[in-house]
Amino acid sequence: MSEWRKDPFSDRWVIVADQRSGRPNDFQSTFQRRPDATCPFCAGRESSTPDPVLVLRDPEAADDFAWHVRVVPNRYPALSTDSGPPNASLPDASENLCQRRHLAGLHEVVIESPEHRTSLLELSHSRLVLCWEAFRQRLHLWRSQGTYSYGLMFKNFGPLGGASLEHLHSQLIALSIVPPERQQIWDNCREWQRRRQQCLFCEWLDRELSDRVRVLASTERFLAVCPFASRLAYQTWIVRRDHGCAFEDASLGELREFGQILRKVLDAQQKILGTVSYNLILHAGPFDSPDCNHYHWYVETFPRLAIMAGFEWGSGYFINTVAPERAAAALRSGMSDEISDS
Amino acid sequence: MSEWRKDPFSDRWVIVADQRSGRPNDFQSTFQRRPDATCPFCAGRESSTPDPVLVLRDPEAADDFAWHVRVVPNRYPALSTDSGPPNASLPDASENLCQRRHLAGLHEVVIESPEHRTSLLELSHSRLVLCWEAFRQRLHLWRSQGTYSYGLMFKNFGPLGGASLEHLHSQLIALSIVPPERQQIWDNCREWQRRRQQCLFCEWLDRELSDRVRVLASTERFLAVCPFASRLAYQTWIVRRDHGCAFEDASLGELREFGQILRKVLDAQQKILGTVSYNLILHAGPFDSPDCNHYHWYVETFPRLAIMAGFEWGSGYFINTVAPERAAAALRSGMSDEISDS
Repeated sequence: MSEWRKDPFSDRWVIVADQRSGRPNDFQSTFQRRPDATCPFCAGRESSTPDPVLVLRDPEAADDFAWHVRVVPNRYPALSTDSGPPNASLPDASENLCQRRHLAGLHEVVIESPEHRTSLLELSHSRLVLCWEAFRQRLHLWRSQGTYSYGLMFKNFGPLGGASLEHLHSQLIALSIVPPERQQIWDNCREWQRRRQQCLFCEWLDRELSDRVRVLASTERFLAVCPFASRLAYQTWIVRRDHGCAFEDASLGELREFGQILRKVLDAQQKILGTVSYNLILHAGPFDSPDCNHYHWYVETFPRLAIMAGFEWGSGYFINTVAPERAAAALRSGMSDEISDS
Repeated sequence: MSEWRKDPFSDRWVIVADQRSGRPNDFQSTFQRRPDATCPFCAGRESSTPDPVLVLRDPEAADDFAWHVRVVPNRYPALSTDSGPPNASLPDASENLCQRRHLAGLHEVVIESPEHRTSLLELSHSRLVLCWEAFRQRLHLWRSQGTYSYGLMFKNFGPLGGASLEHLHSQLIALSIVPPERQQIWDNCREWQRRRQQCLFCEWLDRELSDRVRVLASTERFLAVCPFASRLAYQTWIVRRDHGCAFEDASLGELREFGQILRKVLDAQQKILGTVSYNLILHAGPFDSPDCNHYHWYVETFPRLAIMAGFEWGSGYFINTVAPERAAAALRSGMSDEISDS
């Protein structure tokens, strides 16, 4: 059973999911490179995963696969619906020192290819977009159900990115509370709007477009930028240029355009750094705020090059050894065409 | 030059230390296993490091080494004194979107053995204690100088712990501001004391001693515990049992006792998990608060078993797959003798 526990010193909540691991050596070599014949995500081995909650086929594909994207419940969930009512305090909770709560949520795996692919860059454009359509549909459904407050989509790529299987996949998590870090950012943006009568994202994007030095690429609706205060080397945000917190309301046209700029960024990253582990995370608004004039949903991606070590753990500060201006210049040099000003 | 930059979305500050790295492939294989003949930290190669700021010899040692602990400025500092006055805003700082500041600080390396040792467990008791005496002396000096607000001591062990050299060493950093995460904990403890007329550490240690399940070991002055809301598997705190925020005021007797319980914890960790990467961090109070009745300095250590992945980065929540109660039981089973109740 998963539970929330609260640290009385920092006020941080942690998820204790004891069922996810057995013995100490469970941690050894968790990244499995499997031949196609035993990979649980390959077509033909559908019985090795729980029944899908969503199956999508790319109408543009010329192959015979019955599906191109398949969403299944995670067999080793970090959180699960069977652990009691969301957010209820556990009976033995001590008000002060040892607060514990039931942890309710959903944890799904999005299998992004029926073949044993490992990189998004191997997918056709329409199939890459189909993955994002799957994320959109699941998040849209979760929002409409009203049970959960926040939906998180992320991809762990490669062993240093935390992946345990190499077959192309992402993960979706529904949470019954908005994570404090995300709530803080949300509140800061709302406060900025209130105080300055302007959207922080809009002001920031204007500044980046005028400075130019940290911009990687742009389309009509998106901008790719290495943020000024990046905590990690080569960290990149792909940001919607207009207000909009609800990724789950994105149109197919928007997703198609997003797919183009995403590919451009990942392709440049691979050209400059080689095939390295990375994470990719969607940062949309909370489910209960479909309209807003102070937030733009964005996708963040960063290669896993440096180890978070004693200084970062001890101080909370990150040391970024590649200035975002230099990272942006390097990534731009890995792009085939010029930045469009559209 | 290192600088602070502030992210306007999260209000977090990051350290941009562009001089610490050159090209993208600087990140590849940063952990160097060197034969003794080329290791810059071995006795006989003192000229390969900057001149020491502190040299200590163990009077109990029967060998001929001129030193047993040697503290030198870091050749690749994350922060440095030559980057301007502490905390001064840079001339081109924009008040809102792109705040930047000079970053002043000190960054030193503590070489903990003249021989090519890799583990603290290889040192005699008196030599292990001598390392902590070196930390103490440096922090004591920094506090007395009045220039800096916070001193951080940490050890990165093994490649996944972020070490770049295997020769036994730790690091010391002086900061001109108290890191916000540490300030938050400090404030929480002070507020607890104000509201309840009792120290949070004292209450918590009493509870752990009565629950027993998360306690690993105890001495007259210290307790080793796997905290109730550990964010990482096998995370262990070695906590002073009495009030005291100033590690730098510790007596030699206190350091000797601390060394005993530290060795016990690291030894159990190695027995249970094998030789794994780990971090070890000293959490003392800010320099400007030598006396207090609401804080106990402590040392935190945790093996680096799991990868921080997309969920943790995206939500700020950690998933701990080994409940602290189970971690404590496992570590206790790796200890030779019983827990003393003293």
